[in-house]
Amino acid sequence: MTKPLAIGVAGLGTVGTGVLALLRDNAETVAARAGRPIAVTAVSSRDRTKDRGVSLSGLRWYEDATALAADPNVDVVVETIGGTEGPAADLVRAALSAGKPVVTANKALLAVHGAEIARLADRKNVPLMFEAAVAGGIPAIKAVREGLAANDLSRVLGILNGTCNYILTQMRERGREFAEALSEAQKLGYAEADPTFDVDGIDAAHKLAILAALAFGRPVDFASVHVEGIRSVSALDIKLAEELGYRIKLLGIARRTDGGIETRVHPCMVPVSHPIARVDGVFNAVVAEGDFCGRVVLEGRGAGGGPTASAICADLIDIARNRRTPVWGVADGALSALPSIPMEKRVGAYYLRLMVLDRPGVIADVTAILRDHHVSMESMLQRGRAPGEAVPVVVTTHDCEEAQMRAALARIAALETVVEAPALIRIENLQ
Amino acid sequence: MTKPLAIGVAGLGTVGTGVLALLRDNAETVAARAGRPIAVTAVSSRDRTKDRGVSLSGLRWYEDATALAADPNVDVVVETIGGTEGPAADLVRAALSAGKPVVTANKALLAVHGAEIARLADRKNVPLMFEAAVAGGIPAIKAVREGLAANDLSRVLGILNGTCNYILTQMRERGREFAEALSEAQKLGYAEADPTFDVDGIDAAHKLAILAALAFGRPVDFASVHVEGIRSVSALDIKLAEELGYRIKLLGIARRTDGGIETRVHPCMVPVSHPIARVDGVFNAVVAEGDFCGRVVLEGRGAGGGPTASAICADLIDIARNRRTPVWGVADGALSALPSIPMEKRVGAYYLRLMVLDRPGVIADVTAILRDHHVSMESMLQRGRAPGEAVPVVVTTHDCEEAQMRAALARIAALETVVEAPALIRIENLQ
Repeated sequence: MTKPLAIGVAGLGTVGTGVLALLRDNAETVAARAGRPIAVTAVSSRDRTKDRGVSLSGLRWYEDATALAADPNVDVVVETIGGTEGPAADLVRAALSAGKPVVTANKALLAVHGAEIARLADRKNVPLMFEAAVAGGIPAIKAVREGLAANDLSRVLGILNGTCNYILTQMRERGREFAEALSEAQKLGYAEADPTFDVDGIDAAHKLAILAALAFGRPVDFASVHVEGIRSVSALDIKLAEELGYRIKLLGIARRTDGGIETRVHPCMVPVSHPIARVDGVFNAVVAEGDFCGRVVLEGRGAGGGPTASAICADLIDIARNRRTPVWGVADGALSALPSIPMEKRVGAYYLRLMVLDRPGVIADVTAILRDHHVSMESMLQRGRAPGEAVPVVVTTHDCEEAQMRAALARIAALETVVEAPALIRIENLQ
Repeated sequence: MTKPLAIGVAGLGTVGTGVLALLRDNAETVAARAGRPIAVTAVSSRDRTKDRGVSLSGLRWYEDATALAADPNVDVVVETIGGTEGPAADLVRAALSAGKPVVTANKALLAVHGAEIARLADRKNVPLMFEAAVAGGIPAIKAVREGLAANDLSRVLGILNGTCNYILTQMRERGREFAEALSEAQKLGYAEADPTFDVDGIDAAHKLAILAALAFGRPVDFASVHVEGIRSVSALDIKLAEELGYRIKLLGIARRTDGGIETRVHPCMVPVSHPIARVDGVFNAVVAEGDFCGRVVLEGRGAGGGPTASAICADLIDIARNRRTPVWGVADGALSALPSIPMEKRVGAYYLRLMVLDRPGVIADVTAILRDHHVSMESMLQRGRAPGEAVPVVVTTHDCEEAQMRAALARIAALETVVEAPALIRIENLQ
């Protein structure tokens, strides 16, 4: 067996310590799979005193993460610090510039600066790996970039944020409203004290931007992703969705259309018969649809020290075996220039739930507006009667363009008889 | 771009022509992903006159497949002939001996002669790839061999035969008996005229032997796989399973226990809440459970020209990119010597359905036998009353050893009041 691959781990949070634990516990398996031992030789973290449950004895310690890039006894840098700027970004650029392979779990960095960092990696001909950045323990990056590489993919989508999926599952199973489910998730450690990145869809959008780049062989383009979170999803809509044969999931969807690539993150109604509808709790899932493979569904744990370490160490094994793939699956010069399509062009069905005063003529007003904007109704349902009071009215539409739906919605929301902001949820009639 | 990778395709059935169609239709995508064009230059098939829907003009034609191995203008041999002996085996051995990479969809060959052929490939240092041999369009081989390589896997299991899954799904959804469902599947082309390989579990066992070798880094050992098919599954048992909260699936299961590796293919009752319970029709699924990744589920199309071609061409792209992995994931010298555990040692729960004469004392006889063999009952259910006639009695057990259950079963089957061969189905309480 050849000499060990020497790893420097930056960041000793859940993920960094998970990597140390895996390389310790599964040293024999990893060495056999990698063809050589993989050993951590240096780490970087600010707090040296904290007990992390893994031994750090014998490891060189750097307070400044960037120093790992300069350590001649570090072959590969593992970045688990996080964040789009600061030490994580500095370290990744420094390591690649120094010709050292980088393995990172940092979806934010890749989504925001991925195009530039990937060019640096390609120019230096150094691996930049990030299986852990999307869907944790599910080998989704490898599946899309290598396993399904012979296909023209038409769509890649997924449940990419476990916090949101946990909250939506609790709302459905226990009839909770968002705020209550969020607070419970926070108590259980499934949501952060500041849940913005998760519940507003930003984390999922980071991951979707990466998946879209891989699926369609184009530079990552986070700025073009349409992002909506789950704060406005109500228990009532989840219940009504169920009655209509749908589940509400926060999906990231990247789709190839005639005009280019559509990328969006928002709550969706998906048919209960689709496998992704049943992916509940903190689990993640990725669905890829290709012209030859058909539909492939991957499901597993999207976060946590164990699954993330599993993904990082798979990347380390690839590096040890010298298995190389261009960052976005194709060489820099072969990247596609497919344009991003704005959200207004999305074509699909919609669920619209209004709270209207139970008064003659309300339905006529709503339907007239929909007709004016060429939105064709598939069904309409008024729930209960309460003369003079507010009752829910649910409309589902046939396929129409988002711009038409939004124009209609603005007029409907302005009706005097519509007493709350309407709830609009896109229906994805996945097969 | 460098010069094309020249492919020789042996066998022009559904799979071989699928490969030709993919490399024609997706030539640009494949070239970008592979870093060079991949082009078929030669083919082998016996019938030159048949219209296969793909152009063969300009391709060298060999009646003898083995000649592909000797063609200096063939860089890689794709074997889609099938069968454990004869031309497929001759070609694979000849190509590897000549130092040519081989991509094969031939699970039977790999299961039966894989240990020897893999040694040949390793000795010659030539890639032997077979993503298409297991679960068609699902990149399951890559997931287990590379994506989850850092884990100690405890179990790999799957729905590995689409024909059986289609038949069982039809039996459940339409209340059909096996013979009728098989005959319908044959009419629709989902089952062969001679369905033995599929319905008797042999095809699934071939695939399981391969998966087990990859998951546990050991030489393939088909002979040790316990194999039962689905011929004896009845519509009644499917219905009773449903009432108990289970679905009946033909699973291939490879499990690591303290004593070694258990490999078995047989009808199983799985909880309806497990994702694999809802994988219906011709779809396949593979589940891997690892110490760090947790449970990962992969689902997709397990057969057909398109999905199989997708898998074969992914292997070709790996070869074009020079991404190399030892055949069973670890070098020949690092293969594990974990012994295979015989079926008699399986520990788990059982479903036992008897047809008994509705007569006093029958239940007492059955329960006494179970007690004698230390089989502890979890539930017992007698369905209906029909004094003096046969009624079903269903017993589910707590975990016990297969050997105990079989001993008890033999005595129960011999009871005068038990009027049909008892149905015994293993319960897999998957999480």
